[in-house]
Amino acid sequence: MKDLRVLAFDVFGTVVDWYGTIAREVDALGLGVDGDRFALAWRAGYVPAMQRVAAGELGWTKIDELRRLILDELLARFAITQLDEAAKRELNRVWHRLDPWPDTVAGLTRLKQRYVICTLSNGNLGLLANMAKHARLPWDCVLSAEVFRKYKPDPATYLGVAEVFDVAPAQVMMVAAHHSDLLAARRCGLLTAFVERPRELGPNHNKDVAADPDDTLHAKDLVDLAEKLGC
Amino acid sequence: MKDLRVLAFDVFGTVVDWYGTIAREVDALGLGVDGDRFALAWRAGYVPAMQRVAAGELGWTKIDELRRLILDELLARFAITQLDEAAKRELNRVWHRLDPWPDTVAGLTRLKQRYVICTLSNGNLGLLANMAKHARLPWDCVLSAEVFRKYKPDPATYLGVAEVFDVAPAQVMMVAAHHSDLLAARRCGLLTAFVERPRELGPNHNKDVAADPDDTLHAKDLVDLAEKLGC
Repeated sequence: MKDLRVLAFDVFGTVVDWYGTIAREVDALGLGVDGDRFALAWRAGYVPAMQRVAAGELGWTKIDELRRLILDELLARFAITQLDEAAKRELNRVWHRLDPWPDTVAGLTRLKQRYVICTLSNGNLGLLANMAKHARLPWDCVLSAEVFRKYKPDPATYLGVAEVFDVAPAQVMMVAAHHSDLLAARRCGLLTAFVERPRELGPNHNKDVAADPDDTLHAKDLVDLAEKLGC
Repeated sequence: MKDLRVLAFDVFGTVVDWYGTIAREVDALGLGVDGDRFALAWRAGYVPAMQRVAAGELGWTKIDELRRLILDELLARFAITQLDEAAKRELNRVWHRLDPWPDTVAGLTRLKQRYVICTLSNGNLGLLANMAKHARLPWDCVLSAEVFRKYKPDPATYLGVAEVFDVAPAQVMMVAAHHSDLLAARRCGLLTAFVERPRELGPNHNKDVAADPDDTLHAKDLVDLAEKLGC
């Protein structure tokens, strides 16, 4: 790992707590719908929506727009009729103001001392920049599927990070709380670090956070990752 | 200007002092060549090289590679033969470690309190991220011609900033020390701020820093811009 130069972070679930932020915000709206169920349903619509883009059924579409398509379906399914267009737009923007996990800012700040730290998220650039401002995430660079016009796990995204920074794939470490993301990164020659986020899906779901021996590192959180990287 | 949301900054000359950094570094190498002449010649090769890309004579090429092509020509023209490949690569990377103007970090830090601040530069993403790390530039987002696959002054770059942040062109202000950049931005509906950088070309060249009445704002430097925007 002595040649490691760049840490590329998955964002939703790894860096920020989408579940907690959305569940709280939906509960606070007083719509008569359970924030827990709504947050999980919104997230669940995301992979099928992305697959419609990957399959060519939809042209290139920003995550903001995909999330809005899913939101409109959910509002119908949950029979929520009291939101006007401005309120729907505002609710859809909750993804721009997700709160960080308690260790996130301290961990990133330490890691930034030694490495280039960037996002590699399917979230669009504007969303990621607004989120960084909200949560005070000290990225050196915001990279997104939007730059490569391919969603993760397309190899163009992982290899794109190495290309942007003019380094070999093995000089980049993908950091994520999702094994599928890390598997795809590893197949492109990147190093990988798994970050446990046992409450990513809220208090009612146990997430598998067992170590995968194929990962380069396994960390409890981002401060632990900084420790393990000697930062 | 009450709806202004995003400030997009030209970088070379506006935010960082390419002339001073390069002239000093070339002088320090002791190559027997005048740093002043070398810095100006390197910069002078840039517009023709970009035009080769815009004209389709070269495919999409990162600025790092264009600068290397120009460097190789200059090394021949100045009869510099003592640099090996590693030294040439290192010299080409000087564009990643340009120093900020004295007001830059203070000005950006103030502007960031109220606005989204991003780069809009023809420099590539990796270059801009490395420079931000070196010079401690607190960007919310690094945007580049590389994202839009068009160089400024192509309208796709200016309109691309508005699209990334999902705002109207008039909610974006282009900030630059070059009238041509601001003219192109204005034609796309952006607001514009001119920043005087009378020593951009070094002590031996007077740059025209007269106010253009078509600009929204005219500022001496980035701290003055923060003052004028009430930050």
